[in-house]
Amino acid sequence: MDSTWTTWAGEQPRLGGSTLAMLQRLLGPLTPTEAAPIESAIVRPSALSQGALDRLCGALGTDGVLVDDRSRAEHSGAQSYADIVRRRRGDTSAAPDAVLLPADADAVQRALEVCTAERITVVPWGGGTSVVGGLDALRGDGVALVALDLRRLNHLLEVDTNSRTATFQPGIRTPAAEAALAEHGFTLGHVPQSYERASLGGYVVTRSAGQASSGYGRIDDLVVGLRLATPSGELVLPSMPGSAAGPDLRRLVLGSEGTLGVVTEVTLRVRPIPATKRYEGWMVPSWDRGLEALRTLAQRRDHPDVTRLSDPDETQISLALSGSGGLTRRLLSTYLRRRGVAGGCLVVVGFEGDDNDVRHRRRATRRVLRSAGGVSLGKRAGRSWEHGRFRGPRLRDAMLDAGVLAETLETANTWRGLPETYDAVRRALQASLGKAVVGCHVSHLYETGASLYFTVLAAADQRREIEQWNAAKLAANDAIVRTGATITHHHAVGTVHRDHVSAELGDVGVAALRAVKRQLDPAGILNPGKLLP
Amino acid sequence: MDSTWTTWAGEQPRLGGSTLAMLQRLLGPLTPTEAAPIESAIVRPSALSQGALDRLCGALGTDGVLVDDRSRAEHSGAQSYADIVRRRRGDTSAAPDAVLLPADADAVQRALEVCTAERITVVPWGGGTSVVGGLDALRGDGVALVALDLRRLNHLLEVDTNSRTATFQPGIRTPAAEAALAEHGFTLGHVPQSYERASLGGYVVTRSAGQASSGYGRIDDLVVGLRLATPSGELVLPSMPGSAAGPDLRRLVLGSEGTLGVVTEVTLRVRPIPATKRYEGWMVPSWDRGLEALRTLAQRRDHPDVTRLSDPDETQISLALSGSGGLTRRLLSTYLRRRGVAGGCLVVVGFEGDDNDVRHRRRATRRVLRSAGGVSLGKRAGRSWEHGRFRGPRLRDAMLDAGVLAETLETANTWRGLPETYDAVRRALQASLGKAVVGCHVSHLYETGASLYFTVLAAADQRREIEQWNAAKLAANDAIVRTGATITHHHAVGTVHRDHVSAELGDVGVAALRAVKRQLDPAGILNPGKLLP
Repeated sequence: MDSTWTTWAGEQPRLGGSTLAMLQRLLGPLTPTEAAPIESAIVRPSALSQGALDRLCGALGTDGVLVDDRSRAEHSGAQSYADIVRRRRGDTSAAPDAVLLPADADAVQRALEVCTAERITVVPWGGGTSVVGGLDALRGDGVALVALDLRRLNHLLEVDTNSRTATFQPGIRTPAAEAALAEHGFTLGHVPQSYERASLGGYVVTRSAGQASSGYGRIDDLVVGLRLATPSGELVLPSMPGSAAGPDLRRLVLGSEGTLGVVTEVTLRVRPIPATKRYEGWMVPSWDRGLEALRTLAQRRDHPDVTRLSDPDETQISLALSGSGGLTRRLLSTYLRRRGVAGGCLVVVGFEGDDNDVRHRRRATRRVLRSAGGVSLGKRAGRSWEHGRFRGPRLRDAMLDAGVLAETLETANTWRGLPETYDAVRRALQASLGKAVVGCHVSHLYETGASLYFTVLAAADQRREIEQWNAAKLAANDAIVRTGATITHHHAVGTVHRDHVSAELGDVGVAALRAVKRQLDPAGILNPGKLLP
Repeated sequence: MDSTWTTWAGEQPRLGGSTLAMLQRLLGPLTPTEAAPIESAIVRPSALSQGALDRLCGALGTDGVLVDDRSRAEHSGAQSYADIVRRRRGDTSAAPDAVLLPADADAVQRALEVCTAERITVVPWGGGTSVVGGLDALRGDGVALVALDLRRLNHLLEVDTNSRTATFQPGIRTPAAEAALAEHGFTLGHVPQSYERASLGGYVVTRSAGQASSGYGRIDDLVVGLRLATPSGELVLPSMPGSAAGPDLRRLVLGSEGTLGVVTEVTLRVRPIPATKRYEGWMVPSWDRGLEALRTLAQRRDHPDVTRLSDPDETQISLALSGSGGLTRRLLSTYLRRRGVAGGCLVVVGFEGDDNDVRHRRRATRRVLRSAGGVSLGKRAGRSWEHGRFRGPRLRDAMLDAGVLAETLETANTWRGLPETYDAVRRALQASLGKAVVGCHVSHLYETGASLYFTVLAAADQRREIEQWNAAKLAANDAIVRTGATITHHHAVGTVHRDHVSAELGDVGVAALRAVKRQLDPAGILNPGKLLP
């Protein structure tokens, strides 16, 4: 946990004067707001009975059960726009009645037993970075609610250097996991925007993708073994390279969002730390030609590990917000105009591997981008993206301070369906928000399709912020489902996609998941109101 | 269905005199046997009531319900050693009471409704190539049993050339599927040994791997969309390149072995027909060095599409059985002795792609094999393997004619665990069968481990053939589980691995699958006795 209240550990960036001026030009008048300090947050008295509290302390030790206001307030929400708005208002009505800190897998199992017996709702917590309401304190039928924070289960347990797998506890955050792996010469290569805070267990239960998914694979592809504590006992799925022993139950845990059990151990594929990393920027003349180039790359064996295409609006905003000074920017725009790609789309490609491998794939990629009319912006543009890649979430509080609604949403579709989804979602967001900036990029490529990631900026409608965004989000969700795209590519379902999940899994699919839920969690204590409609 | 009784359509190979002499030298005295002709098979009277038969005919049309003895006899077993032995004895006690031939997905759904109402057990049939008892006519609680043969659902429905996916009906066999795809310039690249007869739906529900799994991916990786008819309604999972909308329910259908529903449509990734195919043979000095080389290849990005390493025993048998005449064989063995790899292990590597890609990967592969002490045997050895790749199943009747027990089994483990599993399974089989030949190859490579495929030859213990093999198989299963390997890498569970599946999925995992089963098939009509213990 961070000691800061609203957002992320470390430096909190502010918006510069020119950025603010640009935002006002694009979005209209903005009303700055201020966040309430955490000290001002008062949480409701804990609903836990003394008996239940005693049993929990018996199961976890007294240092394993936190009931102080600050710990509870810190678990009153995660990172969705609504979460942030509520916290900024000092609204901690959603705080859990206690925060549990199990020290090991057995303690997690004991906690689930006590909570089942006492009918206490459990919300499992990793890094607290859900942007879909996955950590909302929905009480279901429980008489009280606890956050089960896995921060003490934060160790690398084993590395099998031969088989290239590593076994972790679920609460370890990515930087710590990478540091521990680096001692063995390995890396996970899993780099979502939440990298700095998200936990490995969180990745598993939300089906995280990671910006380098084309190279290293989604978390779905990295998981080879699992242990899951459930109210009905432990599910242990050993590490197997490949199997036909019935349906792969690892895939039932992946994406289960804490509704079926709590991951207590995960074994993941790891790769040697690459000798060479090379990121570079390109500009292509248009979104359509960019998409065509990305499809060509995705369907080749020698594709980049990271590939990212921004649409014209996101490209303009990126260039405007980039650190480069006015002169550099003017020179760049002259250069792009001369090369015929002014007003075009930014592409970032990244390669990680040994020298020979990187050289081979880079050559192939350059050929594809050039025949799409692409112009190289060189290593500097790539590095600039790489260095700023975790900046987005950090900027959100600064945006809200300035009176800007700032939120993202994402989906994926087949290559055939992608253009229609892109148009429909943009139109839906614009129609709902009025004077808004909607940027989009493609950042996860598959042979059969790709993701779309939308960033939305609008003047916040003060005191109706949450309703304002909910209406826009609902319009986008409807557009996504209508065009046959997935309701979420890597943010998971949580509460904000819950009502659209039947469109994708069908009533029969939802019923099948409910049946598993009843079997593993018969009392329904685990994360009610998430995932399943 | 084939018109032949015991085995495979087309040419039936016989064993040559020198092969027979070699087998007798290796296995001891052999007693030839003869298979009963299908005409001599008498099946029991159908247990279907006239009322049930009328309802089925109403649902499927009279041409959709076969009750003649021959059709029933042809569905009395698949391709396990026990199945073949029973058929050779003319034992058709396991014949279904009728064979249903639905014409489309709706007819499948109607058939399930009638069978649920009438409590008729349903065994879904694709190509009939299960080697694990997956099609055994186990009646469960049903009053009668039908084989639901999907042979009329055999069409390619749609190709999305942009997204590189193709939608098929489940009963289409691989050669027909490939022929239909070839008209669009595409291939599935899914090439298991059962290729000639197996159906696409069968691949899905048994989690087939395919010999080129390193290049094209297992069927698990190829499935992007599915329709499943279940007694509780239809499960429709649309084509998605990637998603985080809850657990991936496609993976619940993959490996479900007809216990949860009947696949009525599947959308698979397809690839352009490769411009170049290059297969070549190598000899490496030992099993250990071969394994090390394979691990190096599997953990590189530029690996072959097919990689296969035979152990010394399988290598010897392969060379002895190979078509090459005596002189060629003598020259080869002289050459190998001179190069220091006599008594070594055969490696086959295959590459499919465009010229540039094949050249790049071939160069990398040659480097790895050379530094493992490998010696190239050239294209001819590769081609010889490629041409003989479907021969194994065809040889089985000839083996049984000659009095030879011939069966295979397979598993997979991490690179770290592989040597121990290899030793333990070989020892278990040898101890159970006495004078037997046990050959093994690795043929499916992953970054984290690989498969082991054992071929067993022994003198058949006449009239106790099935018991003789069951004892050996049980010993092998125990060795597999004891050494932490998977009970099956790509043959699926069926009946023969059913009692070992809890060791892998755990009691909690099995209970979760049972819960799904109860939800989708509340009357328990679908393939009882398979998959779940």
